[in-house]
Amino acid sequence: MSEDSGAAGGLFGGVFGRGGIGAETGDRAWLRALLDAEAALARAHARIGLISSEHAEAITAACVPEHFDARRLGADAAGAGNPVVPLVAELTRQVGGEASRHIHHGATSQDIMDTAAMLVSRRAGAVVADHAASAAERLAALAAEHRGTVMAGRTLLQQALPTTFGAVAASWLEGLETAADRLAEVLELRAAAQLGGAAGTLASLGADGPAAAAAFAEETGLAEAELPWHTERGRVADIAASLGRVCGAVGKPAGDIVLLAQTEVAEVEEFGGSGVGGSSTLPHKRNPIAAVSAAACAEQAPGLVSTLFAAQVQQHQRAAGPWHAEWPTLTRLLEAAGSAAAWLDTSLERLAVRPEAMRANLAASGGFPMAERVTADLAGELGRARAHENVRDACHEAARTGRDLADVLADHLEGRRGRAEIDALLDPAGYLGSAPELVDRALAARARRRGAERQA
Amino acid sequence: MSEDSGAAGGLFGGVFGRGGIGAETGDRAWLRALLDAEAALARAHARIGLISSEHAEAITAACVPEHFDARRLGADAAGAGNPVVPLVAELTRQVGGEASRHIHHGATSQDIMDTAAMLVSRRAGAVVADHAASAAERLAALAAEHRGTVMAGRTLLQQALPTTFGAVAASWLEGLETAADRLAEVLELRAAAQLGGAAGTLASLGADGPAAAAAFAEETGLAEAELPWHTERGRVADIAASLGRVCGAVGKPAGDIVLLAQTEVAEVEEFGGSGVGGSSTLPHKRNPIAAVSAAACAEQAPGLVSTLFAAQVQQHQRAAGPWHAEWPTLTRLLEAAGSAAAWLDTSLERLAVRPEAMRANLAASGGFPMAERVTADLAGELGRARAHENVRDACHEAARTGRDLADVLADHLEGRRGRAEIDALLDPAGYLGSAPELVDRALAARARRRGAERQA
Amino acid sequence: MSEDSGAAGGLFGGVFGRGGIGAETGDRAWLRALLDAEAALARAHARIGLISSEHAEAITAACVPEHFDARRLGADAAGAGNPVVPLVAELTRQVGGEASRHIHHGATSQDIMDTAAMLVSRRAGAVVADHAASAAERLAALAAEHRGTVMAGRTLLQQALPTTFGAVAASWLEGLETAADRLAEVLELRAAAQLGGAAGTLASLGADGPAAAAAFAEETGLAEAELPWHTERGRVADIAASLGRVCGAVGKPAGDIVLLAQTEVAEVEEFGGSGVGGSSTLPHKRNPIAAVSAAACAEQAPGLVSTLFAAQVQQHQRAAGPWHAEWPTLTRLLEAAGSAAAWLDTSLERLAVRPEAMRANLAASGGFPMAERVTADLAGELGRARAHENVRDACHEAARTGRDLADVLADHLEGRRGRAEIDALLDPAGYLGSAPELVDRALAARARRRGAERQA
Amino acid sequence: MSEDSGAAGGLFGGVFGRGGIGAETGDRAWLRALLDAEAALARAHARIGLISSEHAEAITAACVPEHFDARRLGADAAGAGNPVVPLVAELTRQVGGEASRHIHHGATSQDIMDTAAMLVSRRAGAVVADHAASAAERLAALAAEHRGTVMAGRTLLQQALPTTFGAVAASWLEGLETAADRLAEVLELRAAAQLGGAAGTLASLGADGPAAAAAFAEETGLAEAELPWHTERGRVADIAASLGRVCGAVGKPAGDIVLLAQTEVAEVEEFGGSGVGGSSTLPHKRNPIAAVSAAACAEQAPGLVSTLFAAQVQQHQRAAGPWHAEWPTLTRLLEAAGSAAAWLDTSLERLAVRPEAMRANLAASGGFPMAERVTADLAGELGRARAHENVRDACHEAARTGRDLADVLADHLEGRRGRAEIDALLDPAGYLGSAPELVDRALAARARRRGAERQA
Repeated sequence: MSEDSGAAGGLFGGVFGRGGIGAETGDRAWLRALLDAEAALARAHARIGLISSEHAEAITAACVPEHFDARRLGADAAGAGNPVVPLVAELTRQVGGEASRHIHHGATSQDIMDTAAMLVSRRAGAVVADHAASAAERLAALAAEHRGTVMAGRTLLQQALPTTFGAVAASWLEGLETAADRLAEVLELRAAAQLGGAAGTLASLGADGPAAAAAFAEETGLAEAELPWHTERGRVADIAASLGRVCGAVGKPAGDIVLLAQTEVAEVEEFGGSGVGGSSTLPHKRNPIAAVSAAACAEQAPGLVSTLFAAQVQQHQRAAGPWHAEWPTLTRLLEAAGSAAAWLDTSLERLAVRPEAMRANLAASGGFPMAERVTADLAGELGRARAHENVRDACHEAARTGRDLADVLADHLEGRRGRAEIDALLDPAGYLGSAPELVDRALAARARRRGAERQA
Repeated sequence: MSEDSGAAGGLFGGVFGRGGIGAETGDRAWLRALLDAEAALARAHARIGLISSEHAEAITAACVPEHFDARRLGADAAGAGNPVVPLVAELTRQVGGEASRHIHHGATSQDIMDTAAMLVSRRAGAVVADHAASAAERLAALAAEHRGTVMAGRTLLQQALPTTFGAVAASWLEGLETAADRLAEVLELRAAAQLGGAAGTLASLGADGPAAAAAFAEETGLAEAELPWHTERGRVADIAASLGRVCGAVGKPAGDIVLLAQTEVAEVEEFGGSGVGGSSTLPHKRNPIAAVSAAACAEQAPGLVSTLFAAQVQQHQRAAGPWHAEWPTLTRLLEAAGSAAAWLDTSLERLAVRPEAMRANLAASGGFPMAERVTADLAGELGRARAHENVRDACHEAARTGRDLADVLADHLEGRRGRAEIDALLDPAGYLGSAPELVDRALAARARRRGAERQA
Repeated sequence: MSEDSGAAGGLFGGVFGRGGIGAETGDRAWLRALLDAEAALARAHARIGLISSEHAEAITAACVPEHFDARRLGADAAGAGNPVVPLVAELTRQVGGEASRHIHHGATSQDIMDTAAMLVSRRAGAVVADHAASAAERLAALAAEHRGTVMAGRTLLQQALPTTFGAVAASWLEGLETAADRLAEVLELRAAAQLGGAAGTLASLGADGPAAAAAFAEETGLAEAELPWHTERGRVADIAASLGRVCGAVGKPAGDIVLLAQTEVAEVEEFGGSGVGGSSTLPHKRNPIAAVSAAACAEQAPGLVSTLFAAQVQQHQRAAGPWHAEWPTLTRLLEAAGSAAAWLDTSLERLAVRPEAMRANLAASGGFPMAERVTADLAGELGRARAHENVRDACHEAARTGRDLADVLADHLEGRRGRAEIDALLDPAGYLGSAPELVDRALAARARRRGAERQA
Repeated sequence: MSEDSGAAGGLFGGVFGRGGIGAETGDRAWLRALLDAEAALARAHARIGLISSEHAEAITAACVPEHFDARRLGADAAGAGNPVVPLVAELTRQVGGEASRHIHHGATSQDIMDTAAMLVSRRAGAVVADHAASAAERLAALAAEHRGTVMAGRTLLQQALPTTFGAVAASWLEGLETAADRLAEVLELRAAAQLGGAAGTLASLGADGPAAAAAFAEETGLAEAELPWHTERGRVADIAASLGRVCGAVGKPAGDIVLLAQTEVAEVEEFGGSGVGGSSTLPHKRNPIAAVSAAACAEQAPGLVSTLFAAQVQQHQRAAGPWHAEWPTLTRLLEAAGSAAAWLDTSLERLAVRPEAMRANLAASGGFPMAERVTADLAGELGRARAHENVRDACHEAARTGRDLADVLADHLEGRRGRAEIDALLDPAGYLGSAPELVDRALAARARRRGAERQA
């Protein structure tokens, strides 16, 4: 749709505007939010008796995004430095008559822009949340299904100890759901309407200021701010941080999926069907293109977050630059988070898990990952330090000579353990620790969170 | 003190290590936290019966930072890539005997580093909070005292409408206290102990893993995490964001104070006593050096926050770089936030407010800021658009000709308003809108928040 | 034009897509560059005899951006993770026949994307350079005109010593032109064609690889890279840095103009004509909207630069995320730099300089800025330290008592200087140091740079 | 040495202060640079006849860092907002007598700080360059030695086509050396002395200003700036960018080494000797700790670069925050770059390359990476599209069924190619394209660069 242009809808839109986010961040969505703010303002004034409900209805009726030309308003925005000034002029023209006198009453451009930014954040944020929820659903299913699926735990990208793929997915789940919950909390509590007038004193509304601000917040559906927040931008920073958190919580599993899908590891694979993940020159390749795209979207976040954190420092009662810089930056960050979450969801949908490859990779490393267990088993007798040295020496010898670790250990332990004991110690399935229980904890925590949500 | 070295204590420490923060972020503080983690681990094991309480006590007794050499441990850290490996070796040597066998049991280096990072964050965060609370106290007093002190509200650094200095201070207060509250919440709920063992499965603790993790969290005083969070770094990002918010909430008033203290504005002044704020070459200057320093500290935050947000993407079960990059970055960010808050507190302590300059600056702009009021007054009769044009034309004429705005308006309004009415409309003290009430709201909100804290 | 959508063309385009930049960064511009790359590749193959020139001509003739649908290609890009795969398919369909077999020969998607990114950077960079050159022209004129226009030099936003507005403009000029020169250098030397094939070995071109790469570079007009740079992204980082430098060199004067235009300072003013810089509610305001917009554009740069610097770390022979993240980020950064430079040019075009206000502001500070001169004058007799103390005490007394500084100094100097001497010492026009000469130096350096350019 | 404290020397110094960088970035190094600047200023004054050479010698003789207490100066810096003020006071005390009257003449604190920052950048930058040069030397040797060592080229972390390890190392070399060359260029041309006096007009030097500035630059050995650059910070941004480039050029090979060293890939290994790369709990692990540490150091750069790019916007003639924020940030960035380069050098020193593993990994992927070659071989007959489809189908069938790719291809090609032809097409050693020649080009380019350096 031509109305949903912007970064999420054009030549790079397939990668950076995945899922539903583009519809809530494009010009059309911003226009809708700006008009919703103007309409809510009129209804708020009617509600507290400043204008008639007929006039409020007339204004509301005219607030139809399709009747406005975003491109032209954008061009005209160059005059005043924001699109609200030409929007109000055009809305006034379209409403006409007596009602048109009551448009934008008591508000300054920033009131409308900021309120619209919060509406866009709420609406686009809901898309982010939906994609994240769908991905979380898949992660919960993966965690449950693979509660006991043995795989190598890897530290510094080296096989360390066995874990289960369920425990891995449970950790991804915990990260993603916690981030999404924080986003929801921020959008609920911190996305507030803005009404302060030209200098944040509500001066042109006389004694009606606070009542108008309260009614305005209710009409927009946004939270009511204690004070106008024209240059107290903690709300924007909180939204930025929560989106950056979602991107981090997406980027982590996306990166791991790319690593697990490596040709040499092949513990997971993205099955995207024909035409997906293919290469223009390499017919055999099956790229984890959804995970790659999720990572690409998420990697934009830290820089965008830093711009919005820097923009907290705004001068006096309206900033000369940092405020304006928020608009495209927040828009891009919403798109990054939404598209990242959607791509992760797609990646998980496509994900084929290969338990046999997981087990084979672990076996190929010749029992080394189990070395800790032998150390622990001996520590009581020898002390941790000596046990550690003993086992390390055996590992080094096995690595150097290519001999089987069990054999070398048998030699090194000089009869302290029998061969059957050694074999049992080296069986990864017997050394999963609490990995399966951690899956249970994660799923229980998820159930508690969702119960709390339903009650709220 | 040589023990509090690091960025906060050396040649730049006077500017970037203001207040108490350096003592909680230097090598000594980190060493203390690392040793506290090891001691808590031993006590946790004793508590659930894995080791004797005598051994736990022996280990705890040896965990004295003064007995360790941070510089040497740091140098030795190059071998394993973190200081926990040499620290455990040295602690084992110092404890000696049977007890030394039980040190670090079930833990991996990251468990100790991460737990220490959370202890450092809690302790340094408390210093940040103290400085912020002191600054907030001063802001509340300023807001109350200057509830009705008329000053120019400025948008895009141009005088717009009158407001009060109390309303300005109330907005600074709201920003700072909200940020500090979020920091406190994050440190309370999200600063969790870490215990997962080599691959996050608690494998070497057998069936005792979860119990040990719970006991460990209690012994540290930190929150208990649902799952090990070796590579689910949302907690670190949450702390980073909350510190970045504090820096933003400090940078905003600091920047405004610098602007208000300009030679040509002179509405506030920092009185630092002799030797403070002086220039090496300009004997007459009285620089708002505390506000400048607060700004300088705060400006480091967005970049540091972005590093920690990027570091959320950590590979598999332990990251090959992003984890390590957190240590100096988080340390610097805690220092930035603590020092920024301390400097703002100092700036406010030194602050002299000049109500007469505020009024004079407003008067000097010849009534223009009051123009909105005239527009509003006329809007009922003429419609907003025509009223706006009418008043704008009068303003332009007054500006062009240098004539008094009241006179020009009298001409333009062709008898619609008498001269006395016009004078009254142009009196800033009569057009403060809800500025004084906004002070009341901010102070009431502060009282509610503090009541809630006391109950909690 | 609807084809040049994107951030620079929509609702925020008036602010963030100032001047000609949008036409070189939108979908149409990217599509043109991608097709130019494919056409250049075909011609390169013809040039070294791999295909017939008829086929190369047929392919070139089909490479018309208007014949392709960016939105659909963008959507189809989701399959392979980049728009080249669907573009090549569509181009193949459009060319048809025998010639279509020779499209994209020897290339991988990244070759085309990277070459297009460099073409877009060159073309959009030329727009940035044009706007910067126009602004520099204005700055040079201001520097010359105001070579001796006395104004206050300000440190920490306090009046320090007199300088001239010419010297201030000369410093802005030096910053902007140096940044623009570096951008030009980078685009000339570092914007290179990319041809490496699927793994950077030019394998599918057999022994013709290096010759094809050289011919390709010539056909594109870009530099020839020594090696394929699929994952050696220093070139992109160099471009990013040079754009970030332009943004910094724009943001500095933009910020100063905003400060100088403050109601209380009023040393410059932006005259934008009717409808420009107006406020929706405050008819009297004349906002420096061009400088504000320049600042807003420039403030996006540090975060975008950091994303591109982080993206230097790309895995193996093609990156799984960081490469993709470059596309929207580089596009936004080009837009930020172009729009920032265009706005600065506009601000300077509108700029009215007020020498009388400059002098009045300096006079209003009562001679304090001249205090250094008195110190220096006395230093020979009294030593720097004692002279400094002496004058500082006099300044403090004058500030405290409100007495004229000249009078107080006369008392303090106990006859060491006569009143006429003191008055002369306190005359700012006599204490400009080398300010006018610095203007000459800056203009001479500019002339040298431009001479060198013309020769090159 | 206790004098070289700071981030590079303490508990994290083993990881983040690798190699010689700490000695050039700590308090002692900064103190030395500040004193060098004061001494150079005195000698410059003597050279142009403003003071006697005896006085200049006396001042120079007193500029001994060991005679000053960095910690106390740092603490005293809180008064004026920078350490130069207390340093000059202390230096004046130490020099005493007539000579002490001539210290700091004509300079402002910023002149000394900025000049010192450039000296620190030059000196620490030389350490960065040394470590980079050593790493480049190793890379050149690896490239030459492994010019023909076949390995998998990987795109999106999937095996794509064969390349050689030499070509991979050549690309790392090109990236690192280009970055180091740019750093050298920037430090040579852009690291300039600063002398402007209180407002950048050299006012207190009267007509001697420009001559003094020129002599000062010569005495410091730094470049001479056309104009004072108190708030034209392009020089600092250029240094920041060049350091960020070095970090990127280090992070790329460091990341690849970590990937190649994965347990499942094992194509390279870091052999660090005993106690290095070991794990506190896993005796078998051999972590690529040097590459991991290099990555950790490098990952700090993008955020630090963004802070310095943001700090380009400095107010009027001395900034109220951004200037100060440069000091710790530039120091950290120098440390990050130096330590990253040193760790990469260490990683390469320890690197064991496993050509047999490279070949085995390629073989294990069953000929798929060679598929492109078969496609190309058939493209003449079938057209690229049909050939691509044909081969892709064969690949999919081989992957699905587990049959040998050669066999499946033989079936699919229906006699178009004989089995021997197919086997030859699937031999990776026969499909290296220009990989070996690219090594030659890289080494030749290196030789040219070094020749140019020697001449310069």
